[in-house]
Amino acid sequence: MAGVKIERVGVKNPEEKQVIIGQGNFTVFACDDIFRALLTAVPGIKCAVAMNEAAPRLTRVTGNDEGLKELASENCLRIGASHTFFIMLDNAFPINVLGALKSHPVVANIYVASANPLEVVVAETELGRAVIGVVDGTSVNRIETEEEKKERRELCEKLGYVIE
Amino acid sequence: MAGVKIERVGVKNPEEKQVIIGQGNFTVFACDDIFRALLTAVPGIKCAVAMNEAAPRLTRVTGNDEGLKELASENCLRIGASHTFFIMLDNAFPINVLGALKSHPVVANIYVASANPLEVVVAETELGRAVIGVVDGTSVNRIETEEEKKERRELCEKLGYVIE
Amino acid sequence: MAGVKIERVGVKNPEEKQVIIGQGNFTVFACDDIFRALLTAVPGIKCAVAMNEAAPRLTRVTGNDEGLKELASENCLRIGASHTFFIMLDNAFPINVLGALKSHPVVANIYVASANPLEVVVAETELGRAVIGVVDGTSVNRIETEEEKKERRELCEKLGYVIE
Amino acid sequence: MAGVKIERVGVKNPEEKQVIIGQGNFTVFACDDIFRALLTAVPGIKCAVAMNEAAPRLTRVTGNDEGLKELASENCLRIGASHTFFIMLDNAFPINVLGALKSHPVVANIYVASANPLEVVVAETELGRAVIGVVDGTSVNRIETEEEKKERRELCEKLGYVIE
Repeated sequence: MAGVKIERVGVKNPEEKQVIIGQGNFTVFACDDIFRALLTAVPGIKCAVAMNEAAPRLTRVTGNDEGLKELASENCLRIGASHTFFIMLDNAFPINVLGALKSHPVVANIYVASANPLEVVVAETELGRAVIGVVDGTSVNRIETEEEKKERRELCEKLGYVIE
Repeated sequence: MAGVKIERVGVKNPEEKQVIIGQGNFTVFACDDIFRALLTAVPGIKCAVAMNEAAPRLTRVTGNDEGLKELASENCLRIGASHTFFIMLDNAFPINVLGALKSHPVVANIYVASANPLEVVVAETELGRAVIGVVDGTSVNRIETEEEKKERRELCEKLGYVIE
Repeated sequence: MAGVKIERVGVKNPEEKQVIIGQGNFTVFACDDIFRALLTAVPGIKCAVAMNEAAPRLTRVTGNDEGLKELASENCLRIGASHTFFIMLDNAFPINVLGALKSHPVVANIYVASANPLEVVVAETELGRAVIGVVDGTSVNRIETEEEKKERRELCEKLGYVIE
Repeated sequence: MAGVKIERVGVKNPEEKQVIIGQGNFTVFACDDIFRALLTAVPGIKCAVAMNEAAPRLTRVTGNDEGLKELASENCLRIGASHTFFIMLDNAFPINVLGALKSHPVVANIYVASANPLEVVVAETELGRAVIGVVDGTSVNRIETEEEKKERRELCEKLGYVIE
C-alpha cells in the first residue's frame, strides 16, 4: 500500500448516545449551521456538532450540551480527517434528523448513524487522513427465522409504529 | 489483503478550484445531465463534469470551460474507477450545488466536496478500481479555543452570512 | 359567498425583479432562516425576505439590500395574509433557489415564482386573509407552432443551456 | 369581488389518463426539462408536458405521444393561466413521478395529481388568470367503516403493496 496506512479509531461513547459521522465542507459555516438544522428537526433535542478544518488545523464544535460537545470534539479530533463531522444526539434518534442532514447544503455524505459501538477505519497518507469506513457494531452470523421476523414486527409496534 | 491493492491518486488542481467527486451510474446520460443540473443551480457557473464508463472503457466529459474540462477528465481518468464522476467548479461553491447533485437521479453518493489539496484512496482488484476514501487536506491536531470560535463566526459574517 | 370577500392585490415591482411568494410558519425564526438559505444557495445574491405574523400583527423583514427590503415588506403588508412570505431577488433566478426553499423546514408551499407582472388573489374573512391564487402575467391565447418550439430551444441555448 | 371573476374549466380527459397540474416558471426551459425528468423517473413512460408562457402568449408542449400532447396542450390553453403546466401520463402513476417533479428546480407547486374527472377553478383579472383550486372528482359523504378499512388494505395488497 504505497504511502497509505490504514488504522482504526475506536469511538468513545460511554453512555451509548446516538452518533452520526459524515463528510461536509466550509467548516466555519457548517459547524453552526448543521447545529441549527438539528435544533430545527426535533423539539428538545440535545446535540453537539464537531467538525474538522484543514487550515487552520482545528476541530470546531457547536452544541447545547457540554458533555456531548466534549465527546463529539474529542472523537472528531481523534479521527482527524479534514471536513469530517461528528454529531452526538440526545432526546432524538437518527431517523428524526437524517432527512434534514442529507439535504443540508454543506453535507457531502453520511458515513454512519448509530448508537452501536463504533470503530472508524481511517486511511492516512502524507497529506492527511480519510474516513474509508465505519464498523457499526458486531457483524451478523445467520439469517432471521419466521419467528424472529414476527418478533421484530411486534417490537416495531411496541415502539409505537402501529397502525390500528 | 489478498487480491486488493490500495493506492492513492493525488488530485491535480494547480489553481485550487472547487472539486466534487462522487459515484453515479448511466454515464452516457449522466455526464450531460449533471452538467445541466449545475448550469441550472448557479447563474454564470463555469464547470466541467468528467465521468468514467466501464464499457467501453472511457472517461466522458462535458463542460463550458476548456481548462476545467481538461483537469476534470485527466483527474477522473487517473482515479480510473468506473461510474466515478469528477466535477470542477468556477464562480460557484459546493454549497451552491450539493443539493442539486445529491437529489439528481443518477447520483449514488458524494465522496468529497472541497478546494483543499486532495488524495483519492483507491482499491484495485482484478476487476477494476473503487474509490474507498478521499484525504481532504491536512488532518487536525487540536480543538478550537473560545477565541477561535469567535473568530470563525466573525469570518462567516465577513463572507456575507450576516443578518442585520 | 357568505362571509368571504375576494380581492386582488397588484404587486409593486417597478424594475421587474424576481419575486417568490409562499406560505410558511414560525415567522420569528423563518424570516432570518429563509434569508440564510438564500445566501447559501447563490454566491453574490441580493435578496429580501418579508413575512407576516398574526400575533403581534406585523410584517417582518430581513435582507441585504435596502431597496428589495422596502418593496418586499410593502408588498407583503398589502397582501396581509398571516404566515405568507414575499421574497425579492437580484443576481439570481428562481431556478437557483426553489430547491432550497421547497426543502426548507418552515416552508409549507410556494404560490408563484416569477418576474412577470403579478396580481395576488386574496380571500378575506372576519378572521383574516388567505392567498388563494396568483395571476402570473397575461394568459395565453394559442398553442406554439413547430417554428416557435424551435425558437424556444434556440433561446435556451443562447441563455447558456447548451451542451457542446 | 372587485375586478376578480371566478370560473371553472372542465378538464378534457376521455380515457381517464393520469393528470398532474402545477405552477412553475422559465417556460422555455421548463417544458423540455420537466419532460426529461419524467422520462428519467419511469421506464417506458408515455407523457406530455404543456406549459403556458405570458410573453409571447403561448402554450408550449413537449412529449413522446401525440395524443397526450394534443390533450395536454388543449387543456393547458383552456386553463390559460401563465406559468401553469399540465402533464398527462401513460404507463406511469403520479406516485412514480411526484418526487421528481416536486424537487425539480422550475416547479413552484403542484395543484393536483389524479385520474379523476377534474374541474380547474380559475380567477380572472384584467391582468390574466390564476388557478385557485382544482375539483378532483366527486366529494365525499360519509366516513369509512371497519369493513371498508379492511377492504382498502386488501386492495393495496392486490395492487402489489404486500409484505410477506
